[in-house]
Amino acid sequence: MLKFYFNGSPNPTKVALFLEEAGLPFEPVKIDTRKGEQFAPEFLKINPNGKVPAIDDNGTIVFDSNAILLYLAEKTGKFLPAANVRGETLSWLMFVATGVGPYSGQAVHFRHFAPKDQNHDYAHNRYQFEGHRHYQILDDHLARHRYMVGEAYSIVDMALWGWARMAAFVLGEDAVAKYPNVKRLVDEISARPAAARAIALKDKFTFKSEMDDEARSNMFKHMGTKVA
Amino acid sequence: MLKFYFNGSPNPTKVALFLEEAGLPFEPVKIDTRKGEQFAPEFLKINPNGKVPAIDDNGTIVFDSNAILLYLAEKTGKFLPAANVRGETLSWLMFVATGVGPYSGQAVHFRHFAPKDQNHDYAHNRYQFEGHRHYQILDDHLARHRYMVGEAYSIVDMALWGWARMAAFVLGEDAVAKYPNVKRLVDEISARPAAARAIALKDKFTFKSEMDDEARSNMFKHMGTKVA
Repeated sequence: MLKFYFNGSPNPTKVALFLEEAGLPFEPVKIDTRKGEQFAPEFLKINPNGKVPAIDDNGTIVFDSNAILLYLAEKTGKFLPAANVRGETLSWLMFVATGVGPYSGQAVHFRHFAPKDQNHDYAHNRYQFEGHRHYQILDDHLARHRYMVGEAYSIVDMALWGWARMAAFVLGEDAVAKYPNVKRLVDEISARPAAARAIALKDKFTFKSEMDDEARSNMFKHMGTKVA
Repeated sequence: MLKFYFNGSPNPTKVALFLEEAGLPFEPVKIDTRKGEQFAPEFLKINPNGKVPAIDDNGTIVFDSNAILLYLAEKTGKFLPAANVRGETLSWLMFVATGVGPYSGQAVHFRHFAPKDQNHDYAHNRYQFEGHRHYQILDDHLARHRYMVGEAYSIVDMALWGWARMAAFVLGEDAVAKYPNVKRLVDEISARPAAARAIALKDKFTFKSEMDDEARSNMFKHMGTKVA
């Protein structure tokens, strides 16, 4: 059976959504990143990047949430936009994968986790700006299209949902209302039973909840390491 | 004929490499980002993200360098690893696309372009650390494999080459020698005639070379914009 290495963060949750939507049987394997389980040698053999999600599909290892979405969609034929919009599919999937995801991650870091005893105004502003810029592009696109690509719900919508349902955490409470077309799509997906199951998956396991020194040392290794 | 919207930066150059390797006829279209040509309404119709590279393949628009590499490899059947390593192909392509690329971009920003009248030690250290972490993973992988995926040179190597040939600029002059297996692959690719042509493409055009106020205002819009 497909093993799904996960925690409750945005990137694993979009893969959980696909697995639930497609009805694929899977064995969830908890990786508690606040405890440093992503650095266990046996997990680094699965994903040398030391991150979740990753899957072991009967011996085929795939890591990175967007790689997994594309791999599973191609394998099952489910939630994959048609071949005649392949260019659009790859373009918008990469817009989410290389833009929305990385910039949201940086925005979250400087909004919530960077140490408060230093001034991070410049970096905070840079990543909030980039976050808003990406959301405006998405909102303009979704003002003209019900879904990200083609006429049907697809992996590109799932990829976006993973991060966009966290928009308030990434960009502040008032960000959600600024992008009504993104909100419409996020709300539509969140209302699906598969989304509720994907979000609830983490609650079947016990994850470390405290963001204490142990968690910070496992999640933000750069803080303890000075690079020239 | 395929239109290739480009400048001389790392992401367009990896697409230029593919076009040259595959021998695909193309019409290069200069987008001078220091002059703000990426924000022209006619270009935003091609790539709403206002970035290069993008292609117009006889009406099929594709943007994001990694999306273009995958699209062209699938279309032509060239430099695409075999179907039996599809999971590995997508994993490592995404490792480059969502990790090496974005973190290199941030590392470059804080090493070279963030204003010197503020202290950026924390952000600089964060992105240098992440850059080195990614290079170490690549170096360990390439110690055991001649190419990134499978037994042959592919789009995943091209994606890596785009950024890795700039390692000294991203991580400092001494970084190149720290990752000898990455250097071996970069040197092998850089020695190919197609790579020389890809790098030389920009020299057929005149790009603005000064990093002055106009260039900064076009390339780093967050600097002039305060976000809550």
